[in-house]
Parts: sequence; structure tokens; C-alpha cells
Amino acid sequence: MIDLRSDTVTKPSDEMRKAMYNAEVGDDVYGEDPTVQRLEETAAEMLGKEAGLFVTSGTMGNQIAVLSQARSGEEIILEEQSHIFLYEGATASAFGGVQTRTIKGHRGAMNPNDVRNAIRPVDIHQPVTSLICVENTHNKAGGAVVPTENMREIYEIAREHDIRVHLDGARLFNAVVASGGKASDFAQYVDTVQFCFSKGLGAPVGSMLVGDRDTIDRARVWRKRFGGGLRQVGVLAAPALLALTQNVERLAEDHANAKRLANGLAQIPGIEIDPSTVDTNIVIVNIAGLGISEQLLIDELKKNGLLCGGFGPQLVRFVTHLNVTETDVTTALEIINRVVRGLK
Amino acid sequence: MIDLRSDTVTKPSDEMRKAMYNAEVGDDVYGEDPTVQRLEETAAEMLGKEAGLFVTSGTMGNQIAVLSQARSGEEIILEEQSHIFLYEGATASAFGGVQTRTIKGHRGAMNPNDVRNAIRPVDIHQPVTSLICVENTHNKAGGAVVPTENMREIYEIAREHDIRVHLDGARLFNAVVASGGKASDFAQYVDTVQFCFSKGLGAPVGSMLVGDRDTIDRARVWRKRFGGGLRQVGVLAAPALLALTQNVERLAEDHANAKRLANGLAQIPGIEIDPSTVDTNIVIVNIAGLGISEQLLIDELKKNGLLCGGFGPQLVRFVTHLNVTETDVTTALEIINRVVRGLK
Amino acid sequence: MIDLRSDTVTKPSDEMRKAMYNAEVGDDVYGEDPTVQRLEETAAEMLGKEAGLFVTSGTMGNQIAVLSQARSGEEIILEEQSHIFLYEGATASAFGGVQTRTIKGHRGAMNPNDVRNAIRPVDIHQPVTSLICVENTHNKAGGAVVPTENMREIYEIAREHDIRVHLDGARLFNAVVASGGKASDFAQYVDTVQFCFSKGLGAPVGSMLVGDRDTIDRARVWRKRFGGGLRQVGVLAAPALLALTQNVERLAEDHANAKRLANGLAQIPGIEIDPSTVDTNIVIVNIAGLGISEQLLIDELKKNGLLCGGFGPQLVRFVTHLNVTETDVTTALEIINRVVRGLK
Amino acid sequence: MIDLRSDTVTKPSDEMRKAMYNAEVGDDVYGEDPTVQRLEETAAEMLGKEAGLFVTSGTMGNQIAVLSQARSGEEIILEEQSHIFLYEGATASAFGGVQTRTIKGHRGAMNPNDVRNAIRPVDIHQPVTSLICVENTHNKAGGAVVPTENMREIYEIAREHDIRVHLDGARLFNAVVASGGKASDFAQYVDTVQFCFSKGLGAPVGSMLVGDRDTIDRARVWRKRFGGGLRQVGVLAAPALLALTQNVERLAEDHANAKRLANGLAQIPGIEIDPSTVDTNIVIVNIAGLGISEQLLIDELKKNGLLCGGFGPQLVRFVTHLNVTETDVTTALEIINRVVRGLK
Repeated sequence: MIDLRSDTVTKPSDEMRKAMYNAEVGDDVYGEDPTVQRLEETAAEMLGKEAGLFVTSGTMGNQIAVLSQARSGEEIILEEQSHIFLYEGATASAFGGVQTRTIKGHRGAMNPNDVRNAIRPVDIHQPVTSLICVENTHNKAGGAVVPTENMREIYEIAREHDIRVHLDGARLFNAVVASGGKASDFAQYVDTVQFCFSKGLGAPVGSMLVGDRDTIDRARVWRKRFGGGLRQVGVLAAPALLALTQNVERLAEDHANAKRLANGLAQIPGIEIDPSTVDTNIVIVNIAGLGISEQLLIDELKKNGLLCGGFGPQLVRFVTHLNVTETDVTTALEIINRVVRGLK
Repeated sequence: MIDLRSDTVTKPSDEMRKAMYNAEVGDDVYGEDPTVQRLEETAAEMLGKEAGLFVTSGTMGNQIAVLSQARSGEEIILEEQSHIFLYEGATASAFGGVQTRTIKGHRGAMNPNDVRNAIRPVDIHQPVTSLICVENTHNKAGGAVVPTENMREIYEIAREHDIRVHLDGARLFNAVVASGGKASDFAQYVDTVQFCFSKGLGAPVGSMLVGDRDTIDRARVWRKRFGGGLRQVGVLAAPALLALTQNVERLAEDHANAKRLANGLAQIPGIEIDPSTVDTNIVIVNIAGLGISEQLLIDELKKNGLLCGGFGPQLVRFVTHLNVTETDVTTALEIINRVVRGLK
Repeated sequence: MIDLRSDTVTKPSDEMRKAMYNAEVGDDVYGEDPTVQRLEETAAEMLGKEAGLFVTSGTMGNQIAVLSQARSGEEIILEEQSHIFLYEGATASAFGGVQTRTIKGHRGAMNPNDVRNAIRPVDIHQPVTSLICVENTHNKAGGAVVPTENMREIYEIAREHDIRVHLDGARLFNAVVASGGKASDFAQYVDTVQFCFSKGLGAPVGSMLVGDRDTIDRARVWRKRFGGGLRQVGVLAAPALLALTQNVERLAEDHANAKRLANGLAQIPGIEIDPSTVDTNIVIVNIAGLGISEQLLIDELKKNGLLCGGFGPQLVRFVTHLNVTETDVTTALEIINRVVRGLK
Repeated sequence: MIDLRSDTVTKPSDEMRKAMYNAEVGDDVYGEDPTVQRLEETAAEMLGKEAGLFVTSGTMGNQIAVLSQARSGEEIILEEQSHIFLYEGATASAFGGVQTRTIKGHRGAMNPNDVRNAIRPVDIHQPVTSLICVENTHNKAGGAVVPTENMREIYEIAREHDIRVHLDGARLFNAVVASGGKASDFAQYVDTVQFCFSKGLGAPVGSMLVGDRDTIDRARVWRKRFGGGLRQVGVLAAPALLALTQNVERLAEDHANAKRLANGLAQIPGIEIDPSTVDTNIVIVNIAGLGISEQLLIDELKKNGLLCGGFGPQLVRFVTHLNVTETDVTTALEIINRVVRGLK
């Protein structure tokens, strides 16, 4: 079975398992887990921030960032297809009491003018705008890399208005590798960043929140409320450290595989995808031309040994990752071709 | 001074003041204020609903409706320029923990297909959609009347998905009079309605929430939390009853005055307004052509005896109401003409 | 029917009704209601605070005070029989996300040492203590006056820990009159005070929140979220002004009536009350000795023309107020005596 | 260094590390991690409940239980020294909007009559009581075992009032071993149970929530909001499984060690502890008789190779666990004796 549903399905390598086995641990609630500390320091340094905080999921990292930087009755601005808005259970509102204000972006990037216009004036009827959230790479935009220039412009607007900016960088390192730059190139234009060890980087569990020390100190308090204060969590930090030091550069292979897949898919009648828009490891295709529902296609592919996921009406998503080889991509294309032909 | 800032500035008539003076009252927290009861029953009957609940403001009525029909962690759908989203201090999120999902409408009306697409599928990552809010007349859309047909389509979609619909009818009676129908023509397509006595209807304070008895019973509990359980509040219910029985039909005069004003404004170079879009008592003009900020124009008009309000960049709003006569409109147009000429 | 259920049942006098009729009003959301402004200034001055904010109920005033001075995830300390904890629908937690920490008081007064011990140390597992609430007079403690000395000690502890203090003074003027001092004698030991115009002071609707200007400015924003931003609310402020200027001294009569009532009740076998504990206008008796439920007694008294209220198992509360005369008290005692004799 | 600060400091055994290394894993958000599933089923079966949900901490498990069984504006009843009330950052109020109502217990057990009296009557002023929380063993009561008979009585009261009961069983297995019964003996008197793998049971990270299937289904949704939906979390479930199957019986050794420690401490002048109250692995002593602060004693002991923790003014807590041997206890007592003598 070739699993292209998500890069979250990656399994820890033997080396990561060994790292877990050997991990030096302590009680992290007491601040005594040396592996977690090393991971937090390494991450903060890579992103050019003062401090880091290990969390168990991207959702936890994003939501803690929101609650640490926006208060009940305030408003946050985010892209209307962003993960925080779509897929995190309305937690910012439920736990934080903040209102979400969405902007329709282009390939994941919000127009800075739209952001500026969405900022609230001082008025007793209106909430204060306190945070802008950017997502990079942008999942629903097909893994698109949001340009640093766009981030810079939004950051400057935010500074002018004394508003903070958070980066949901669940797949930030895909953007880093695709753009050929450094993580700090992106992180410099935001106040806080969340990124995941458990997606393309291949660790079993874990994400990181980085930012200035004050914010991270407050975030640590919120993490306790989220039940994220853990004990000998060095067993998770050890493979995460490996992920960070060993699995970043190899994301380029996933991107090449995604491009291959997109090129192949583009040649199948009834499937619509512009391969030039595939920046990283996500390929979203429109199957309207096949005349069937996305669920039917997904089910048929599954019967033939290929897993992928629905991503809205007539949209199907394929994600490449470290457990997918070039050969798997070739096989996947064969399966898809066969299944599509069989539909007629 | 002619005050066209809002119909909220209307002052109670002598008859209303007499009604207050003579009001039969009791402790409404004990359910013993006969005037409030009469008002609640009258309102429910006019809108074809089982029960009513007197509240002190439109915001309180809208927010109680939201909290009575959506729970923390759920999502509500509303038009992106709606009052609940823009001007109620993010209360639905702050007090209710609900996430706001906005749809861009046309003249205040959301496209039913957009509504359908915004309803969440069953998915552990996503909030449940529990409520759709409609606003009629739509303030930011220039007092536009949202057609009952549009409301019917949205209501049917809501029914299919077991979702409730609330109508922010702060100015519902303007829609009723403009369309020549009955309040229940609109109310039949929603589960709850809030409407205001204190705007065009001319009462000093107060709004009404109506709906089925179960919902209103829950709303009464929420009203207590909002601090809306009052004592001898018949003194407010008495003028509100008068508003409902005496001031509805006369809204037609406000509409005629607004149309007159729009026609006059349309002839002033630099001011943009299509009078055919003025359905009721609100006139929003674009003054980009004047080459000055809206605030400067507002300040100049004020110096010349005319009050109006900013409504976004380069937008100025004029609202007619029962303290504005046909002569006032003529005078207002003279002032605007004079001021605009003076700007050049 | 003699109504001793609560002083909330008082009906506005003819003079108050005239004040409503004649009230000079404006749109208070625009800050243009002169009567409300005069009321807010008068109240602030009487209590020695910088600013006031008119609200429609004691619950609204108390809850706005809490939300303006404590944030989500923080803790407030209050007496375990206080109104804010018992009778305000858990609103501080529901709308404000604050946790309630209660202390058992003696006649409504919390022991300052208990308060000190309840303040949280700095610890990531624990909420920050941000507010202490005092109630005076204390309703559940039978209208007991909490001594200013007790308030002073608590205030000093609060200052040491940079914690704010709020006074739920729904019946503060009863404490003022009973102690022979001034309202500011009490208010000096707290940061904010809420007091009601609609109880013993006899206005139909309304309460006041006073404090320093910064807090009141924030409170005004929260009031909007509570739906408490009203329009021509001078019609409520006018009778409230009368209440403040004309009905304070006369509370002494209610206290005398309550004492009379307590003395009479103390002589009825099976009813337990120590008249020396009746400081103000509330008389709570224990009827365990009658061998019947409080509800049965209440029902029987009602049949005989006397209204009173249950206040917990075997507790019945009687409240005197401006619509209760000395003769009414005599009659009430006759009714109670007759009913109790009839029970045997 | 002998570490008696908490049983949370236990480090995973080599066998647990091997279990991590070998863990069969999958993406648990997709419900595909077989090790987690085995753990959830095993736990549910041991406690006699329908379903289980793996979470990363006791706080997460407790708070999810609260949010799954109580809504915003409702009230929960808990012991005034309980962990949920004292040490979970006011999360039930912050995230869930529920008010906490505390009862002073005796050795961790709430008097059932007090519980009954704390349940709210139906009244528009009052919150609905929806959940009662019990803690067993009770940490602040010195690891006391709350008798099943007490739990049964509380459960019956809850049933009568249609209220749910949650057990914070962070150290439930200490109670089980100390009482010589089964986990289900305790679990039968509650609707949901949270217990920890990471304390006495020695796993590095993790807790379990069990209950009926409906509640656990809702809990799974809340877990997502808490950021507790993880990926290849079998790496944590594998050592947790070992903890459950191998480390339960041996808790008896910790209890014997705690008793030994208590007996030794009881003989030190100035230290107060009744060894007969030491039911399990926690020993809390009062050091008032030493005439020094608890922090000073803790610091001195640390310099001499013994770690313990402050637990309130003049209270010091010692906790035995699987990394503490009988010899360690002897050494610890020697250190304490030496330090205390040196203080004079």
C-alpha cells in the first residue's frame, strides 16, 4: 500500500527509535529534561528567536501562540483556508474567546492591503485586532510557499499597528528547502513560529513553538492549561532532534517526487493540476472532469493499493514524504491511470 | 442641528413619555411586570413565534440568540459586513466560545450556495456549524432589504443540515414597510428574531427577541448572565409598545426622505450614490471623488449644522428617522452642496 | 398583600415617574445623555471615585467589574455565600474564564488571614489571584454590615499582593445608613464599587459601577459586550438620581421596621432569629422548630396576604423597603402568628 | 541524590525503552496506531468501562473529562484541596466556562451530605450543577485512600440528581494496591476516570481517560482542541502498557517505604506526622516545630543529597516511587536527622 494521504503518516526510522531508546531524560515540568532543553535551544537558534517550547502537536503550538498573544474579546486575522481557521476545532474562540477574521488569499498569501483594511479602528463597538496568522507552506493552497516578501509587507503593517504576527509553519522546512534559504529568512518577519517534527521531518510526535522569551514564558503557562506539561518527554525530543538535524535537506526529494506526480497527473484526462504550482510536497488535483465524486475515486484507488485524501468537493490531495520513493510515485501513477481508465 | 448620524438618536415623543409615566409595573425577574408581558406577547404574535423576551439592546438580543443556539467550540455563519460580526465586540467568541465564519454577500444577502459550502462536514478537526445569522435590513449594505426568497433558500439549507437561523432584525420593520408585507413574512424563515424599538421605531431603550418557547426559555437564563434581568422594566416596555403599535407605518416617510436625500446627493459632483439602491432609511455615499477624507467632510458638515457619520474609508452614512422632516432633508442637501462647493 | 420578598419589588414613586417624563435625554452610546452623565458624576463623587458607569442591573455591574479586573485563567476570591458566587449564573467563569475561590465568612466578613492564605503563590500549576470581592451589606448573612475595619485589612493585604478589590454594594447605602457614616468610608477600601438604585433606593431599574477612570474606561468596553450600551437611557437615570438624593436617609425606617419584625418573630415559638444580628433591612429566620418546610410556610403566609421568600433549607427571608410601613409590619406579624398557631 | 520530590520523576526502565524501540505504530489521528488501541482497550477493561482515550498528561485527562461533561455556565463540585482546583491553572473555568464549587473534605473525602447541599436547585439565578469530581488517592491529603463506600454514597446522590461523577485517579493504582481490591471497585462509582502512567507506574509520559463510549467520543473531539491528537504515539503507549501490566503490584513496596519513612520522621523532634495516616506513597509532614521555613529545610536537605518539596506553609512532602529503594529511605532518614540536628 502506497500511502499519500499525508506526511503525518511517516514512521520513525530505526535511528530515531534508537535515539528514543537512548534518550537522556528528566522531569520536564521541573525543567530537568536535558534532551528537551537541547531541542528547544537548537530550534530557537535555527529560527533566530530567543526561546523555544516543545509541544505535542501543531494544533497545540498554534493555539498556545494565539492565546499567548490575543485576549478574549480581541480579533485575529488569518487566511480563509488556513489550518488554524479550518482544522483546529474553533479552539481559538472556544478556549481563547478571540474572534476570527478571515481574508481570501492567493496561493496562501494574503494581500497586504487586505490585511491593512481588516485591522480594526479604535471604536467601542469593535474588537481590538491583536494578531495576524500566516501559514507557510500553505496546506490548502497545495503546499504553496508564501514569499518572504509577502511576509515582510504584512509584518511591517503589523508593526505599524502594534499587532503581533504568528507563523503556522507546520511545514516551514518544506518552504525553506524549496526556496533555498534559511528558516530564519521566514522567521524574521514574525513574532512566533510553530513548526512540526511529525510531518515531513519524520519524527513520531512533536512540534516546536519559538519566539521572544517573554512570549515563550507566557506560552509555558498556557501549555500547562492545554495539558502539555509532560514528564520524561526527552523520549520524544530525541527523535525530534534527529529530524531537525538529519531530515531537512532530504525534503527536496519529496518535492521532486511531488513534481513528478503532478506532471504525471496532468496528463490524465479529467484530472486538472498545473504542475508549475507544485512548490513542495503537496499535490491537490481537481477531478471534476472525471464525472465522479472524490470519495469514489479515493475508494477505488484504495482498492488498488493507493491511499490519498479528499480535500473538499472534487478535490483530492496527494502528499509525498520520506516513506515514499520515486518508484512509489511511478507505481502510484500507474494505479491512478488504470483506475481512471476503468471508470469509463 | 440636523442629526442624520443614526436612527438611534431619536428621542421619545411626549406620548411615549406619558406611557412611561403611567406604566403599570412589577418585578420582571419574578415575572410580574404586566407591561413587559404584554409587549412580549404582542411581539411574538406579530412575528408568528411562540414567545418573546425583552432585552435592553440589539447587541444583547443578538448575542443571547447566538449563545442560546450555539455552544463553545461550534461555528456560526454570517455575512462579512454584518453587525454581529463587525460591531458587537467579538462577544459571540468572547462569551460564547463560538467561531465566526463569514461570507461576502451581495447587498447584504448571502448566496445560498456559499452558505451551503460553508457548512462543515462531520470531521474531528472541524467545528460543528450550528447557526446561520441573517441581517435584514442590512445596515452596511445601505439599509438594503434582503429578499424573503433569499431567506427562504438559506432556511431550507439550514433545515437540511439541522442548523438554526437567527435574524438580526434591528431594522426589520423598515424591511417590512419597504416590502409592503408583514413581519411574519420574514420571521417564518428563521428560528429567532431580534428587533429594536430604539431605532426607527423611536422608543428610548429596548429590543425584543422572539422564537420558540424552548429557545426563549434558555434565552431567559442567558439574559440573566448578561445582566438583563431587570425589575420594574415596564417603564421601558410601555413606550416600546407604543413604538410597535404607532410607529411602524410611518417608517415609509423615513424611506421617502432617504430617497429624496439620495437623489439630491447623486447630483453632487464627487459624491457617488445610486438612489435606486436605497431601499429604506439609510444612505451610504462614496466621497472618493471629493478628494478629501470622510472625517474632514463630516467635520465641515457639522460646523454647518448637519451631523452624519463615517462608515469606512471614504464612506459617509446618512440615516433618516422620525425626528427628521422633509424640510430637514432639503436643508441638509443645501448644507452639503454648500460645503462641497466650498471645498474646491 | 404585604410584599416582604425583596426590596427589588419597590415601585417607582410618582415623583420618579415625573422625573422620567421630564428627563433630558440623548444617545448614551454617543456619550450624549446629560442625565446619565450627571448621575455618573454624582455617584462617583459620593463614593470618592474618579468615574462612574450606569448599568441596568447589579449582576451586570458586578460581572463587568470582574471582567475588567481579572482575565481568563486567573482566580478571584469571594465569600462562599456571596451573591456573585451564588446568584449570578456562574457568569464570571462563563464569560470571563475566571475561577472562583470561596472563603467561609462570619456574618458576611471574610477573615483577613483566610484571604491572605487563599492568595496563590507564583507557580506554573496555579492561577494568578487577581481580584477579591467583598459584599456589603451581605444578603445571605441577613443584611449584615461588614465593618470598614475588616474591609481595610483585606484591602491592605490586596495592596501588598497587587490584587484589586471589588465591592458588591448592591445594598451599600443600607450599610452607610446603619453605620452612620458616608459611602466613601466603605469605598475607600476597594478599587471598584457596584451599587443598586433598584432595591431599597426605589428606582425602577439600574445600578452604578464606580472606580478609577482607567478601569471604568475598560468597563465601558465590556458593558458594550454585555449589551449594556443603551440609547436614551436618561429615562432610567432620572429616577435613579432622585433615588440617590432623596431615598438614602429614609433607609433608616426600613431598618427600624426590620428590627421590629425581628423582635416580633423572635417571640414566636419554633422561629429562630436573634434580633441583635439584624443590622439593616433583611430578616432571615430559621423555622426548623416549626417542623414544616419553608415552602409550606411561605405558601400559607401567601394565602393570608403576606409574601416572603425561601432562602435555603428551613430559612425564610423577609425584607423591608419603602413600600412597607410600620403598620404593615404589625399586620405581617399578626399574619405569621396566626398561621403558625394554625399549623399546630 | 535521592529524589523524593514526586513520583513524577521516575525514569523509564530499560524494558520500557525497549518497548518504545519496538513499538508498532501508526497515525493515531487516523485511528491507526495499534499500540494505542491496545492500551485504550486494556485500560477500559481493567476499569470496567466501555472505552478509553490516551492523553499526554493527567491535567489533559481531567480537563477533557470536565469539558465533556459540563458546559459553560454550569458548576462542578470538588474537594477544596483537589488537584483540579488547585493545580490545573483554572483551566475548567478558562477553557470550559464552568464555575468551581469546593467542599472541605476529611482526608480527601467529601462528606456526602455536604455534596448534597452543594447541588444547586433549579433557579434562574443559579448555575446548573453538572459534575462532581473525586480524587483518589488524594494528593494534598497525604496520599489518603478515599473509601469506596464514600464514593458510592456520592455516586448515589449524583444519580438522584442526574449529575455525573469524574474520578481524578492520577494515583488510582496506589489506592487499588493499598486497599487490596481492583481498579473497577473504585471505577464502578464514577462515570469517568483519569489515571496516570507517568507517576508511580513509571512510564515516561501519558495518562488515560476511560468512560462510556458516548462520553469518550465527545472527549476525543475535545482532545483535538487540547492539541492532544497525536501521530505515531504508540511510542508512548508501549511503555504505558508495560507500566500497567508490570508496575502495579510493586506499588506495595513504595507504600512500605513511605510507611518506613513516616515512622522514622515521626521520631524526629519538631517534625509532625502520624504514620497511621500514611496510606500509600506520600508523606506530608508539618515542620512548624523546627522553627524554620519549609524552604530553608528543603534547601539544606538538597545540599545533603536529598530532594523533597514544599507543600504549603510549613509543610514538606516526600514521595516514594520505583527509583527509591529501602536503603534510600534509610539514607534519607539519616540525612534528615543530621540536617535537623545541625539546625539547632
